[in-house]
Amino acid sequence: MYALGRHTLLELKQCDREVLEDIGEIREILLGAAERAKAKVVGESFHQFSPQGVSGVVIIAESHLSIHTWPEWNYAAVDIFTCGDSANTEEAIEFMTRSLSCQNLSVLEISRGIVGSHDAQG
Amino acid sequence: MYALGRHTLLELKQCDREVLEDIGEIREILLGAAERAKAKVVGESFHQFSPQGVSGVVIIAESHLSIHTWPEWNYAAVDIFTCGDSANTEEAIEFMTRSLSCQNLSVLEISRGIVGSHDAQG
Repeated sequence: MYALGRHTLLELKQCDREVLEDIGEIREILLGAAERAKAKVVGESFHQFSPQGVSGVVIIAESHLSIHTWPEWNYAAVDIFTCGDSANTEEAIEFMTRSLSCQNLSVLEISRGIVGSHDAQG
Repeated sequence: MYALGRHTLLELKQCDREVLEDIGEIREILLGAAERAKAKVVGESFHQFSPQGVSGVVIIAESHLSIHTWPEWNYAAVDIFTCGDSANTEEAIEFMTRSLSCQNLSVLEISRGIVGSHDAQG
């Protein structure tokens, strides 16, 4: 048995509200996190919501990073989905926590795509 | 206490390999799933990997849908992250399962951003 992907879910509470509201900063932070994770960026999409909140996704060669912010709750939901062994998820987590001035972090890690020889079919 | 987001993780095994390899079909399926969920698409990014595999993300007004495919394992990892009560996640799951000819589906649902009055700060 083997897990194809490693999916890390971050709950970032008590963050800096002004950063959470700023699509430019959020984009820089998510791309910076991808860089810290030593991930190769191959696509991106960001969106500013009205009256507030930002969503962003970066597709990486190793899967994706995503962020959704709720400035009114000082909260951001971040996902780091990687495959292979090369990504440095811990560096990315530390960078995001610091960049958002997060005072309350929870991390949940889930194995995705646990496969065995019975799963490979023609 | 209140959950800002609902994050549904789908493990789709024993899928149709040819569909998993085709970025055009995968894009249609993810956008179709967003439509079935009654979600409003505001951004998208898709990438074809070599020698095989597709990654795609659709940003919706209600958060995001993502897919990563491993054709060699007949497997796809799909996330449906929504907020608010309007999204019809079940319709999206049924559509994706059918479109990928998935014979083995697992669903994990996670509440994101469980907040209370103590989380809202200036």
